[in-house]
Amino acid sequence: MAKINQNYMQLQGSYLFSEVARRRNKFISENPNASIISLGIGDVTRPLPEAVLSGMHAAVDELADSVSFKGYGPEQGYEFLIAQIIGNDYNTRGISLETDEVFVSDGSKCDVANIQEIFSLDTVIAVTDPVYPVYVDSNVMAGRSGAYDKTANRYENIVYLPCNAENNFIPSLPDKKVDLIYLCYPNNPTGMTLSKEELKKWVDFAKANKCIILYDSAYEAYIQEDDVPRSIYEIEGAKDVAIEFRSYSKTAGFTGVRCAYTVVPKGVKAYDEDGNSVTVRDLWNRRQTTKFNGCSYITQKGAAAIYTEAGKEQIRSLVDYYMTNAKIIREGVKSLGFEVYGGVNAPYIWLKTPNGLGSWQFFDKLLSEANIVGTPGVGFGQSGEGYLRLTAFGSRENTETAVERLTKISL
Amino acid sequence: MAKINQNYMQLQGSYLFSEVARRRNKFISENPNASIISLGIGDVTRPLPEAVLSGMHAAVDELADSVSFKGYGPEQGYEFLIAQIIGNDYNTRGISLETDEVFVSDGSKCDVANIQEIFSLDTVIAVTDPVYPVYVDSNVMAGRSGAYDKTANRYENIVYLPCNAENNFIPSLPDKKVDLIYLCYPNNPTGMTLSKEELKKWVDFAKANKCIILYDSAYEAYIQEDDVPRSIYEIEGAKDVAIEFRSYSKTAGFTGVRCAYTVVPKGVKAYDEDGNSVTVRDLWNRRQTTKFNGCSYITQKGAAAIYTEAGKEQIRSLVDYYMTNAKIIREGVKSLGFEVYGGVNAPYIWLKTPNGLGSWQFFDKLLSEANIVGTPGVGFGQSGEGYLRLTAFGSRENTETAVERLTKISL
Repeated sequence: MAKINQNYMQLQGSYLFSEVARRRNKFISENPNASIISLGIGDVTRPLPEAVLSGMHAAVDELADSVSFKGYGPEQGYEFLIAQIIGNDYNTRGISLETDEVFVSDGSKCDVANIQEIFSLDTVIAVTDPVYPVYVDSNVMAGRSGAYDKTANRYENIVYLPCNAENNFIPSLPDKKVDLIYLCYPNNPTGMTLSKEELKKWVDFAKANKCIILYDSAYEAYIQEDDVPRSIYEIEGAKDVAIEFRSYSKTAGFTGVRCAYTVVPKGVKAYDEDGNSVTVRDLWNRRQTTKFNGCSYITQKGAAAIYTEAGKEQIRSLVDYYMTNAKIIREGVKSLGFEVYGGVNAPYIWLKTPNGLGSWQFFDKLLSEANIVGTPGVGFGQSGEGYLRLTAFGSRENTETAVERLTKISL
Repeated sequence: MAKINQNYMQLQGSYLFSEVARRRNKFISENPNASIISLGIGDVTRPLPEAVLSGMHAAVDELADSVSFKGYGPEQGYEFLIAQIIGNDYNTRGISLETDEVFVSDGSKCDVANIQEIFSLDTVIAVTDPVYPVYVDSNVMAGRSGAYDKTANRYENIVYLPCNAENNFIPSLPDKKVDLIYLCYPNNPTGMTLSKEELKKWVDFAKANKCIILYDSAYEAYIQEDDVPRSIYEIEGAKDVAIEFRSYSKTAGFTGVRCAYTVVPKGVKAYDEDGNSVTVRDLWNRRQTTKFNGCSYITQKGAAAIYTEAGKEQIRSLVDYYMTNAKIIREGVKSLGFEVYGGVNAPYIWLKTPNGLGSWQFFDKLLSEANIVGTPGVGFGQSGEGYLRLTAFGSRENTETAVERLTKISL
């Protein structure tokens, strides 16, 4: 008799963005003439950079000819792309990596969801709160979460590290034993960053406690300030304790094209049941070669084109476009008296809801009064209650219209 | 302290094709002038069909414009592709499916490796032997295999169903309790098929025992004989007990482009710890929406183009090309006195090794004397010992040269 993975029964409600979509669709069906502006899901809207388009067209043409045709590629990604990643994204910052420490994939969502598989089921995970739901849900599915406590809106066995206005969104080190720590900077959803000094505390903590940091830097390209670390490997010792996730989704408009990479330095160790150290990179390599078959050749050629001079310039202008939107939203809502965070080194603006409104209450209010779709902060965790996320990924026109509409909602 | 998933320590050696690549590379480094012909890994070599190329170029162009730009797509795949799949691959055979029973992905390898996640850890799995290694290894990683028995070359808790010349490659029903049954027809690696009558025995067994059949039909397009079932859903009742995996890798040359789909009819149920039935489709949907972010838009547009009249014609001629190769290999080795199976409804030819040679011995002999890379049958399981797989995916010229070289090896 086929039995289900009972852990799935612990998952709470629909995935956040499904619920947002449901409410949005309901509103549209009831208000068919409303002109909705979505500043909700963190999805890009600008066309792909010209260099990427050319790279992909050329790759399609290669597949038209039996001499240049490519079948299965390396599960870890093509060396032509990995060399560009190491040269441009790491060597330029004084970080050295070996080719077989970088794994190209079809998306960071997959990688951050799958990485937990290579660790034991009794692993204790720590997450900042609010948090990208995939870190939590992938561990719930694996059975690491314990029961869900409805009152607390938290799972019993997960260690939550609150980040809110009170602590200036800087998480405290865990006060109990943890094994894996998920950090995301620039942060989704708050848009906030950690300084090198703050990040160093985490690397030191991980070293002292033989923890591993799962460092999601999907929004690295949006960093504007010089003193904000772009990679965790800028911190001394991080290559012994940190796995870093990067994505082209937001950097280059690849949300529909699918390409990301994960760095697993050979210095990162975990321990077997006899206490012997095991090279985590080898486990991930085995996971990927067994369960994944590489990212599309066409996509990888498109990604490699980002590293040409033209590509770099086009990416900069893409990021500038969205960060100008971020500034418009940030300054706009600020001038209306909102408490606002993020939006300086990240495409996310994290609003404190006015008048003590709950996140979903404010979501519904924005939707009905301004026809704007945001993302309720509480959807990212209990510490997000009373906040709402707006993204800078809209068009300029929509962004400006949204800010104008905000002036008219009743507060 | 981060601890590893100890189950990984149960995995045996390298993944089969890594070991093949290692021996091949060693031979090349020692014999730099040898002209190697690979009939090993099941990878296509012909260019993509013209319709697919046009579809993908057009999709790239859509991403060049902010109006037609596509960001995140549905994790389950675009409806434009799913409608073509249902209409062409199923309705034409009298099988009805709903849109939300089809899940598009970046490859069947991922899907068949990931599907086990939604079932309980004490699930007993049955596999035919020889078998595609991913079915076994993904379950080893999850902890369902028990210890590896070196003498038997088998895992203790996995139920193996031998398929060999003695039973004409028709597996017997399990003689012990099993929960999930992996079947692959046309079979990889043997190239053999099951008749409708044989397949019906499995559907009936699954119904009687509340098992689920995981039916991999990646090679469906290669079926030439009319009475061979192309989908398990041609068997009455299968929509209550079977999940079907299909891929464009071999059908349309997508091994480097990455697109596949998985059908999970809502009639398929598994049971929770209280014995209540749960719709497996909903669990898979939750798994995919949480851990996957959809297949590339460009790839899906390319896949949809396969269903145009031109696309269908081009696919047929692609399959004909490889099946002519299959015939050349099959008849060539037969005329040399080999016992040979498969190659009629599948692009794989399954050779009995001559003179009682072991699979790896014959692999090495083929490599050193004929400079041909095959795949040792024992790499697919103990019942594959004494066999070797050749694929029809080479070029015509290489296929003919390979058969000619075979006449010269010492037997």
